[in-house]
Amino acid sequence: MKKQIPTVKGARDFYPEQMSLRNWLYENMKAVSQKYGYQEYDGPFLETLELYAAKSGEELVKEQAFVFNDRGGEQITLRPELTPSLARMVATRAGQLPRPIRWWSFGPMWRYERPQKGRSREFFQWNIDILGTDSIEADAEIAAIGAEFFRAIGLTPAEVKIQINNRKLMSEQIAALGVADIKPALKLIDRIEKLSAEAWAQYGVEQGFTASQTAGLRTLLGDKELWRKSDELIRFFDILDSMGVREYFEYEPSVVRGLDYYTRTVMEARDRDGEFRAILGGGRYDNLVSEVGSDQRISGVGFAMGDMVIGLVAAKYGRTPTFAKSPALVLVTVFGPGSMADSLRAARSLRESGLRTETYPEAVKLDRQLKYADAQGIRLAVIIGPDEAAAGMASVKDLKNRAQFSVSQADLPAKLREILDSPLPS
Amino acid sequence: MKKQIPTVKGARDFYPEQMSLRNWLYENMKAVSQKYGYQEYDGPFLETLELYAAKSGEELVKEQAFVFNDRGGEQITLRPELTPSLARMVATRAGQLPRPIRWWSFGPMWRYERPQKGRSREFFQWNIDILGTDSIEADAEIAAIGAEFFRAIGLTPAEVKIQINNRKLMSEQIAALGVADIKPALKLIDRIEKLSAEAWAQYGVEQGFTASQTAGLRTLLGDKELWRKSDELIRFFDILDSMGVREYFEYEPSVVRGLDYYTRTVMEARDRDGEFRAILGGGRYDNLVSEVGSDQRISGVGFAMGDMVIGLVAAKYGRTPTFAKSPALVLVTVFGPGSMADSLRAARSLRESGLRTETYPEAVKLDRQLKYADAQGIRLAVIIGPDEAAAGMASVKDLKNRAQFSVSQADLPAKLREILDSPLPS
Repeated sequence: MKKQIPTVKGARDFYPEQMSLRNWLYENMKAVSQKYGYQEYDGPFLETLELYAAKSGEELVKEQAFVFNDRGGEQITLRPELTPSLARMVATRAGQLPRPIRWWSFGPMWRYERPQKGRSREFFQWNIDILGTDSIEADAEIAAIGAEFFRAIGLTPAEVKIQINNRKLMSEQIAALGVADIKPALKLIDRIEKLSAEAWAQYGVEQGFTASQTAGLRTLLGDKELWRKSDELIRFFDILDSMGVREYFEYEPSVVRGLDYYTRTVMEARDRDGEFRAILGGGRYDNLVSEVGSDQRISGVGFAMGDMVIGLVAAKYGRTPTFAKSPALVLVTVFGPGSMADSLRAARSLRESGLRTETYPEAVKLDRQLKYADAQGIRLAVIIGPDEAAAGMASVKDLKNRAQFSVSQADLPAKLREILDSPLPS
Repeated sequence: MKKQIPTVKGARDFYPEQMSLRNWLYENMKAVSQKYGYQEYDGPFLETLELYAAKSGEELVKEQAFVFNDRGGEQITLRPELTPSLARMVATRAGQLPRPIRWWSFGPMWRYERPQKGRSREFFQWNIDILGTDSIEADAEIAAIGAEFFRAIGLTPAEVKIQINNRKLMSEQIAALGVADIKPALKLIDRIEKLSAEAWAQYGVEQGFTASQTAGLRTLLGDKELWRKSDELIRFFDILDSMGVREYFEYEPSVVRGLDYYTRTVMEARDRDGEFRAILGGGRYDNLVSEVGSDQRISGVGFAMGDMVIGLVAAKYGRTPTFAKSPALVLVTVFGPGSMADSLRAARSLRESGLRTETYPEAVKLDRQLKYADAQGIRLAVIIGPDEAAAGMASVKDLKNRAQFSVSQADLPAKLREILDSPLPS
């Protein structure tokens, strides 16, 4: 066996079947984004490290980013997330963009992580954000779009939930425990599900919290009614009600998210039994745009959803559709070397009529050509031998119901369209 | 003015208007690819340097590739082209893929080049290939798809031409001049348009050719009838005739392409006055798949088209369409803080009826909300004040013809659909 050239660890090949899944996600993300009037954009894939150093948080920048020096000596980063690029782009055109700014994107990101189920180093992410408004309606709209996406691909509120919290509420509550610095407290909260109760309390002490503070934190994190102390959250849930998606949401005090730039609403989606815990993640960032270069204060709220976890969730709940192989509906076969021109002309007229059509590129045995059509899921095969050609006719095989008939070449496109449009007997 | 974080040299921001252009190209590429039955795929963005070292050629690998060491010490390359990844993917599944393999892709590539008009370091490329057949019909099909794309976006044969040559033909002709090694000769040919006649002859001598050999080469390159000496080219042009795209093609002996792996047909598209000289480039590669790890011989033929040059060509000939701003057709305004729930519910019913709808997220002055709709190109604005709400009514402003009317909220979706579907008086 010849030595194969290896792939890079954590990079992914998208064969047509994986590409169909990625496109199915993309098409649903696009439809839901556009339903709410969001415009598609994209940032560069290469950014300066400085952009993330501003606010993304230590773990992402120091541990997970792919950073390298280019030939000019610049330090370049393969984008580990899109929000800082979005903030930079908005900051650059702050004066010209009508607000609110509703933008969405779908593209590759890179993080240096241990490849495992639902994680690779090269992954795709849907980002959707609204900027230029402080209103809680914007937070609710973004959250509602997440729920609408789940609904669009068939995931029910019994299967997935979006958990909501508010960092402002948490900051007030944490301050009331006598904790001065909110950042290490959020980090501690972010770990509560990853550690045992003892290990977590111990970690709290190591981080400089008193035993009574960690105990107070734990009580807070168990209080599912805490949201009633936040006017923002009360309105947030009311709005989701008007928008018809309330059943996808619940309040969860332990959700605080890992990125440093979130200021108020935070959100995270998980599935029923918690097997998948960050199907999407997001929140409101009030200061990021000015951190990366705007004189104007432009706040924003958004979420990101990676392609791998949602792909696994869709599969787990049986919501992944079966994808067609070839996009072609018709294969025009080649009877013999002398028939090629006839076949090419027939294929041309089928394509001109709007039917996606493959031709077989060689005059091999007909049986092999028909097997190819079958393997590719192409339903109709057209055969034009010398007799048919002389009579201006074509034979058609319907590989789905094994029917066969003759039709004049002039009527071929209309006849095939008629077959493809009529329902199959079941 | 606050200091802005810079972008990486040669990287690109896609604001919604640039994204619309990229998507317009993508949609046309997709439509033409699918018309011929090609399946979409994608390779990884990160590959090993070894993959390109196999056959891409020295310039691409040593001068243009972004190469870096990752945290694990592996030498990683940001893909400068897609064909080697395609060859690797096909080699990996050589036994399972029905043949012919018809695949297309559209995605980012990176090359370390001096940023200039039509070139950036981060660019997008359409790749389309057919593998697993040696037939010249495959070469012609790929070439025809290039022509069909030009036709699809409105570029005529008077504006763009695909120039064809054949490396096998050239090798035979060059060998007849007493030149033993074909590679430096192809390199010399590739420069004929870039150098003056004297500089070119001088360069030939430096590369070890005799004066009579460079003179012989120059004669060859002027012979537009040379294709008649190649059975492959004679058939190739015949097939294009049957496919209905012959007028987009011409024979050009100086086209040999820069990549090392091409073996026979090569192609390159340019515009009328030669301002743009490599709108697409491609050819047949008979050995690449086995070079990267297949025991089976699987040949292929394909081309690549970068997004920047074709974007400039479309603009030059006035073929770039005007793009909509917001995908929304309707803006539901907010009359006052107490009207938000009514507006959200109206927006919900419009979306449920299939109308893409934005809401204004704050109860600012109505005039500002209507200006926003205008700026985003949203045609219809819905207003629900307290009086309308009490009567179950809504006011609608048609911003295109400045008409205004009232309608019951129950009839709102149907009425707006009717307006959007009826032609505007001109």
